[in-house]
Amino acid sequence: MKDIQSEFDTRGLPLDMVGITGISLPLLISGKKNSVQPVSAVISFYASLASDIKGHHMSRFVEILYENSGKRITLNRLKFITSQAKRRLDVENAYLEVSFNYFMKKKAPVTGKIGYLDYRCIVLTKVNSGDDEQVLTVEVPIMLLCPCSKAISKYNAHNQRAIAKVKVVLRKKLWIEDIITLIEKQGSCEVYPVLKRPDEKYVTEKSYENAKFVEDIVRDIANVFSQKKNIVSFSVECESQESIHNHNAFAKYISL
Amino acid sequence: MKDIQSEFDTRGLPLDMVGITGISLPLLISGKKNSVQPVSAVISFYASLASDIKGHHMSRFVEILYENSGKRITLNRLKFITSQAKRRLDVENAYLEVSFNYFMKKKAPVTGKIGYLDYRCIVLTKVNSGDDEQVLTVEVPIMLLCPCSKAISKYNAHNQRAIAKVKVVLRKKLWIEDIITLIEKQGSCEVYPVLKRPDEKYVTEKSYENAKFVEDIVRDIANVFSQKKNIVSFSVECESQESIHNHNAFAKYISL
Amino acid sequence: MKDIQSEFDTRGLPLDMVGITGISLPLLISGKKNSVQPVSAVISFYASLASDIKGHHMSRFVEILYENSGKRITLNRLKFITSQAKRRLDVENAYLEVSFNYFMKKKAPVTGKIGYLDYRCIVLTKVNSGDDEQVLTVEVPIMLLCPCSKAISKYNAHNQRAIAKVKVVLRKKLWIEDIITLIEKQGSCEVYPVLKRPDEKYVTEKSYENAKFVEDIVRDIANVFSQKKNIVSFSVECESQESIHNHNAFAKYISL
Amino acid sequence: MKDIQSEFDTRGLPLDMVGITGISLPLLISGKKNSVQPVSAVISFYASLASDIKGHHMSRFVEILYENSGKRITLNRLKFITSQAKRRLDVENAYLEVSFNYFMKKKAPVTGKIGYLDYRCIVLTKVNSGDDEQVLTVEVPIMLLCPCSKAISKYNAHNQRAIAKVKVVLRKKLWIEDIITLIEKQGSCEVYPVLKRPDEKYVTEKSYENAKFVEDIVRDIANVFSQKKNIVSFSVECESQESIHNHNAFAKYISL
Repeated sequence: MKDIQSEFDTRGLPLDMVGITGISLPLLISGKKNSVQPVSAVISFYASLASDIKGHHMSRFVEILYENSGKRITLNRLKFITSQAKRRLDVENAYLEVSFNYFMKKKAPVTGKIGYLDYRCIVLTKVNSGDDEQVLTVEVPIMLLCPCSKAISKYNAHNQRAIAKVKVVLRKKLWIEDIITLIEKQGSCEVYPVLKRPDEKYVTEKSYENAKFVEDIVRDIANVFSQKKNIVSFSVECESQESIHNHNAFAKYISL
Repeated sequence: MKDIQSEFDTRGLPLDMVGITGISLPLLISGKKNSVQPVSAVISFYASLASDIKGHHMSRFVEILYENSGKRITLNRLKFITSQAKRRLDVENAYLEVSFNYFMKKKAPVTGKIGYLDYRCIVLTKVNSGDDEQVLTVEVPIMLLCPCSKAISKYNAHNQRAIAKVKVVLRKKLWIEDIITLIEKQGSCEVYPVLKRPDEKYVTEKSYENAKFVEDIVRDIANVFSQKKNIVSFSVECESQESIHNHNAFAKYISL
Repeated sequence: MKDIQSEFDTRGLPLDMVGITGISLPLLISGKKNSVQPVSAVISFYASLASDIKGHHMSRFVEILYENSGKRITLNRLKFITSQAKRRLDVENAYLEVSFNYFMKKKAPVTGKIGYLDYRCIVLTKVNSGDDEQVLTVEVPIMLLCPCSKAISKYNAHNQRAIAKVKVVLRKKLWIEDIITLIEKQGSCEVYPVLKRPDEKYVTEKSYENAKFVEDIVRDIANVFSQKKNIVSFSVECESQESIHNHNAFAKYISL
Repeated sequence: MKDIQSEFDTRGLPLDMVGITGISLPLLISGKKNSVQPVSAVISFYASLASDIKGHHMSRFVEILYENSGKRITLNRLKFITSQAKRRLDVENAYLEVSFNYFMKKKAPVTGKIGYLDYRCIVLTKVNSGDDEQVLTVEVPIMLLCPCSKAISKYNAHNQRAIAKVKVVLRKKLWIEDIITLIEKQGSCEVYPVLKRPDEKYVTEKSYENAKFVEDIVRDIANVFSQKKNIVSFSVECESQESIHNHNAFAKYISL
């Protein structure tokens, strides 16, 4: 049977990324305290392509993913999966992007009522002949209350849900749960799945006592992450779904 | 050249809707005071299919749309376009769904600063041998401030952007602009594109003086629409992007 | 502490649906052969609201969901969850909509190579004082090859991915897996996660031998479902992502 | 009235981007041959923030946008708008991202029947004290037919819609229309809004005679753009909505 992909390519143009996108896979994400969380991941998987080869056999990406779908997914496992693509497709660079919703239980601040909150996570793994790299992105919903609105108004202040998004280049092991907790504390208040009336009173008052612009959130998160020894390089952004507008407010910080 | 679509179908099964979806078209929407607004519409266009015919020639839908793309789009024009499909495809029923963003200028409440606000609109037109029907859906962003949070807290109340969505079965002519204005007034406060500090103070205080649940919004809009003589049948829903949760609050009313 | 929601409402307007939307929850879906599949569900949960009550305590929906999140989710369990809302909120009607991606392993047609394919599923449960109702919606990706293109061209025929969507009113127990299998067989060919070259040859040739319009797909699925004794009422639609256009072809059948 | 934003910030952390996202605006895009096309744009608008200032007055971004909404939008006008933010907010860097659907009329290849095709465009403008930069991104739908499937099968080849996406750093004036035309020619075949049967025959046969992988498309587009003297730096990617899978194939090239 003819093998077109393996034919010689005359254009002399290497490609940076060739692969598959938008493939869904059930995965078991390894969490803190030896926990395992089943997730429904959406995956992109790429390899570089040398200038003299016509194309990749895309089915190999799917085969590698399937072989690992029953395994416990750690950062090391993701490196292993990515390096499998590098080895079996015989390429310079391979890239794996795994995105999923991660759940954590969260207690209401006064009554202690428990519910689940979900956080969007993306792990990008790059494997090449030199240094590998892993970048973790976490999106955390928080509550934001506007300091300007509070300062100029007789009562009340506009507040809204905001999404804080942190990208961290991983040098040492970092738990998703710990990153989420660090970020959540920097909002005007945390958001919660269950709030009974005593909790709602707490959240309403706490957010008012703790007014912050998107600029403040981003600076406060950046300060916290700058002091962590195991974090070398990161970016922070926050998008606030302004209750008074039909558009959002945004701020971003990129560490050196 | 063979014409497979026109062949006889032996399965004896008429289809309710056959056509095209997700086609984009530049349109000129007719507005109040003889105004015309260019929009980028996304369109679905269907016809019923008799049990003995294999399929429709889908290109005819696109041809009819193109022929009308330069015309001023009124409700009558939409009926005309839909009836063109009924006639030229020789069917019982034809359906046209046109969705677009409609812009209105909006003045800040104190300083009068002007900006644009956009509203999602959908017009569904059904043409058959008996009565035709047109249904207009409009989505309007508003500000919502929680009465419970206000009542139980020493200060502040959680507030957020909400989307009020009204579907109206059109009997007589109704302007999109008028429907939007009716809906906007029922929020805890309207949302605005530009707010200088005196405006922000106004919005913050007004929303606090005017606390409403999603339930209140839907009931208040329903009351207003019930009293309009030219509106016979409608539904109202409101989805509130709760600032204190990672999920939304929702209410819906369907008129008899 | 004041309880605004429980106050008397003077507007005299009952609401059809009041509740929460867009809440994510990890669930364990019960499948065939005693299997259990963990999914990341997105949920809407509503109750009707009597004309004399101001609002619902939305936190109760979240509490009921959390209490059931560790249980095995069957159709009966979904009815139980929904009836919990009816009982604890003391209402006429309650509605629960649970949507999730369901995975099935799928073998390549020649080499037998295995991978995962995902199918979007939605279960809507309505509980009221009379008859309850459950409606299952399943979206199945299939391959479609155009009979017209095949008939008029010297070689080749345009083909594309299409999504067949079936809604079934459930009277008796029906397995998601069985519905998916019924639908998949009606495409010009099934789609697969892994295809090696002998598989790709098979799929390319089979789809050509089995040319179908969206109209054909919908009629063929409708015929199959009409003959099932345990299916009383259903609708079928198919949206084909035409390779030759930037828009889609669509057909829909609604059973009596 | 207090001005919190202008207060001194003690954290000593400059921010890269502070501004607004997701604001919609009607714009008039300047095209070839002195044409003007009204579009519904979605805009993000940012400014850097010095380390000693607490925040930006976000309303200024909206005011600047509104002042320019009636003007003819050229690349120079976008630079002017962005530099207005730099000047009026007194910052180092300002960024403006404008995204919109651009329509072009397109003739069927045999019958010459005309319809509209839409292309997603994004223009990012950065203004700072040194060199300014403008990057144009255009997404073009094309038809792709698989060379492997063709080579190994007795008849037919799987084909599908693909989106080719090109990002160009603009040095000299480039028309969106010209970029689109360059890209469209590199598909196995172009896609069209209207295709009568003689056109469909042409498209079906032409795509078969012109089989290409995503890798081929990206290399061919890269070759064309490399030879243009007025294009210095660019990237090309192509995502193919595989008719035989539920996932996509992807390739990307980044010029030096």
